[in-house]
Amino acid sequence: MLKCYLQRESELVVKKGTILSGMRPTGALHLGNYFGALENWVKLQDDYECFFFVADWHALTTGYEDTLEIKSNINELVIDWISAGLDPEKCTIFLQSKIKEHAELHLLFSMITPLSWLLRCPTYKDQLNQLKDKNITTYGFLGYPNLQAADILIYKAGFVPVGEDQLPHLELTREIARRFNFLFGEVFPEPQAILTKAKVLPGTDGRKMSKSYGNTIALSDDPDTIRKKVSTMVTDPARIRKDDPGHPEVCTVFSFHKVFNEAELPEIEESCRGGKIGCVQCKRNLADKMVKYFEPIHERRQKILEKPEMIKEVLHEGNKKAEEKAKKTMEEVRSAMKIDFM
Amino acid sequence: MLKCYLQRESELVVKKGTILSGMRPTGALHLGNYFGALENWVKLQDDYECFFFVADWHALTTGYEDTLEIKSNINELVIDWISAGLDPEKCTIFLQSKIKEHAELHLLFSMITPLSWLLRCPTYKDQLNQLKDKNITTYGFLGYPNLQAADILIYKAGFVPVGEDQLPHLELTREIARRFNFLFGEVFPEPQAILTKAKVLPGTDGRKMSKSYGNTIALSDDPDTIRKKVSTMVTDPARIRKDDPGHPEVCTVFSFHKVFNEAELPEIEESCRGGKIGCVQCKRNLADKMVKYFEPIHERRQKILEKPEMIKEVLHEGNKKAEEKAKKTMEEVRSAMKIDFM
Repeated sequence: MLKCYLQRESELVVKKGTILSGMRPTGALHLGNYFGALENWVKLQDDYECFFFVADWHALTTGYEDTLEIKSNINELVIDWISAGLDPEKCTIFLQSKIKEHAELHLLFSMITPLSWLLRCPTYKDQLNQLKDKNITTYGFLGYPNLQAADILIYKAGFVPVGEDQLPHLELTREIARRFNFLFGEVFPEPQAILTKAKVLPGTDGRKMSKSYGNTIALSDDPDTIRKKVSTMVTDPARIRKDDPGHPEVCTVFSFHKVFNEAELPEIEESCRGGKIGCVQCKRNLADKMVKYFEPIHERRQKILEKPEMIKEVLHEGNKKAEEKAKKTMEEVRSAMKIDFM
Repeated sequence: MLKCYLQRESELVVKKGTILSGMRPTGALHLGNYFGALENWVKLQDDYECFFFVADWHALTTGYEDTLEIKSNINELVIDWISAGLDPEKCTIFLQSKIKEHAELHLLFSMITPLSWLLRCPTYKDQLNQLKDKNITTYGFLGYPNLQAADILIYKAGFVPVGEDQLPHLELTREIARRFNFLFGEVFPEPQAILTKAKVLPGTDGRKMSKSYGNTIALSDDPDTIRKKVSTMVTDPARIRKDDPGHPEVCTVFSFHKVFNEAELPEIEESCRGGKIGCVQCKRNLADKMVKYFEPIHERRQKILEKPEMIKEVLHEGNKKAEEKAKKTMEEVRSAMKIDFM
């Protein structure tokens, strides 16, 4: 396992390896994003040397036709990250498009990546189908896993936190690393997946939480908004009167209690099935718990909003650190490929 | 027409526009390359602001499996260029891989370039067929015209000297420029072709001059080598004895006389058809003319070889100039695309 030693606050911290992960700046993060990835990132930053990047170039693969909001989305994303607990003192937060070496390595990888590897990537045709309203049959959209490989390998990341759906992409990254090492000599590790066991939260209407359904709760929602959204949550449709017996297994509110209110879960289930508690009261209880859960995150957000210039400062510092490491790797890459003429 | 004003040697030179062209570093240039492109470049540098680049990234599209000679080929190519008369005081000579902005613009163009544009590029399938022994069904090989578009447009070149076979690539560059301007606002010109009327020189065996046939005369061949190669040239096979009537239209040597000895052409044709001149004598005459023709080129080569460090100096200076212009264009690109967050 890769190990690196970081001197921090005059104590020697032994880190378990290097991690890379990123998110596209496509708007405010919702709780699905938080529990699907970000919560885990916050934990990982203590044990690993972590590089977390705003994937603005990736956002162009599907969003090149409308870039109007990309700048405010970048800002919003980093605010979400730091509010959630990412600590720029512990991890490196940077903006992909500022590290030109990603584009260089992407270009070099493109020379050794068979077209077939990209065409057979299971997510490729899926996404083409799902995003039929967008004009994304482009060269760049096909090459997106190749850019991802460059993102990961340029930091020689040994570990990548991913959801199961992202495993084929990571496998492609490993294949590209192997092919490069085979052709030019050992430069890259084969990164391992750290599978994120995501807590599953439905949207307020019971479907998958997704911006396109308009059923999200944003990480940035203030207590009032949380309370309002919880109050509109879909519950057991068979329960018409307060004393009708409820079915927690089909109730959105109960799914949320599972995440935010584990301690009271048996009690809530019993009261619901026995028709002893009304949905309004049950929702109010959940909203209290959620507001409390997100209190530290909201407090951090308030502090950031008081000095909004800190976002660019964080990125500026992070970019410097990322660039240094990326440049070092690229020197090795060019030397291995024998294209280091000057 | 684009015009730019360059202050040089305290005189104001009005240039007709910006030109970009490049060559892959794949070994010593032969006379086919010289008359097909380089001779024309030397003329263009007086009237246009010219950027000539060593396309080392392009060399990887077909040559990634064997990069052992790429560094010496880069050196050799620039020596060939300067020997032939490219003047670093008049034009910008640079190394593609040192200007990372080419990779960045390539990546951005990839987002807006439909796959179909690349797949239907007529040279794509041709080359796949021709280079069957190489493993080039890669993502990078498919995207090569996209990289070429970035090479050209990053300097806002209004003119590109090309052979007819390269016209489809240039058309693709124009399409990409149009698409970018349509999506994000006017940034790029649509470059025009300057068609090179190449003098046609066959190889010494009468077939097309090509390294793979081993029938080339290199620009770097010294007088003795030229004489030796001319002496082995294939002539009219029907002419067995010196006084047999010859057929200049099928004679390789006569094709060369057309280029190097226009003045004596009628006389040579007559003597040949009348069986009044032997092939040996005719070849000796040609060799004399060729050696004389290439004298200034060989002299310049000798001077360069006396201070071989000048090649890196020339590239270093050229890279600086190219980078400055490329960075300026990229600022406009990012601003137009609204991805200039910081």
